[in-house]
Amino acid sequence: MDFNSFISGFVEGEGCFCTSFNRRAKMKTGVEIRPSFSISQNKRNLPLFKLIHEHFGCGGIRFSKKDQSFKYEIRSIKEIAKVIIPFFDKNPLMGIKKDDFVKFKEICLMIYQNEHLNPGNLNKIIDLAYSMNYSGKRKYKKEELLKHVAR
Amino acid sequence: MDFNSFISGFVEGEGCFCTSFNRRAKMKTGVEIRPSFSISQNKRNLPLFKLIHEHFGCGGIRFSKKDQSFKYEIRSIKEIAKVIIPFFDKNPLMGIKKDDFVKFKEICLMIYQNEHLNPGNLNKIIDLAYSMNYSGKRKYKKEELLKHVAR
Repeated sequence: MDFNSFISGFVEGEGCFCTSFNRRAKMKTGVEIRPSFSISQNKRNLPLFKLIHEHFGCGGIRFSKKDQSFKYEIRSIKEIAKVIIPFFDKNPLMGIKKDDFVKFKEICLMIYQNEHLNPGNLNKIIDLAYSMNYSGKRKYKKEELLKHVAR
Repeated sequence: MDFNSFISGFVEGEGCFCTSFNRRAKMKTGVEIRPSFSISQNKRNLPLFKLIHEHFGCGGIRFSKKDQSFKYEIRSIKEIAKVIIPFFDKNPLMGIKKDDFVKFKEICLMIYQNEHLNPGNLNKIIDLAYSMNYSGKRKYKKEELLKHVAR
């Protein structure tokens, strides 16, 4: 039994690599990027969440009123770059979620190296994020967001 | 990377250990039991299903019109007893789905040894099955089914 591979299989089904955006007139680029890695479950699976939380040693568990479920989530770009990305490089997703991870990794490494402050790269990040399999509702249409990138 | 542990993690999120019932006046006990192990996914994850199907070497993949998703399913009691149960004994579920597996295992091993033909055991199987976390809609209320067991 390998808990790393177990987590990878669990994330293949239940995990979410997500990049959301907010328009922020005060920011240099006009657009704020918020990447996150999360897993959602109902209350009954909380003990497993605690095991995973402990295993990764970062992020937090909270109740999402909107989805009426518990969410284990990591938003810190440093923790995503230093913990989450190396984890899934070593313990690869074996299904369609791998496609999302590959794009998420590219986005997060650009942000971690501050390359998203360049408008060309920000456009690329927006392109990548909108090509991912996103289950939630997008706040902005892609064209609307691209128009808003400060040049 | 251990594919067995990956499958176990994937099933923790997406798998279903299910026991359904049909009233059958022509059967000795009056009630037919149908256990099944299944995983459901949308079309995009079909290649992973094929890997898992190959790995287990039994069951089949079919499209469920009702759920608009693909289902990898094993219904044969022999394959459940000889392949699925030993697999999850060796590669344990780490979350709440383990509770379902433990009950499913008890039910299936009774059926495999023909113990379900005894009304007392059939009542026990119905009790166990109705205490599982069942996502679908039950055809009969538990009391209705118990009343129907031939003595």
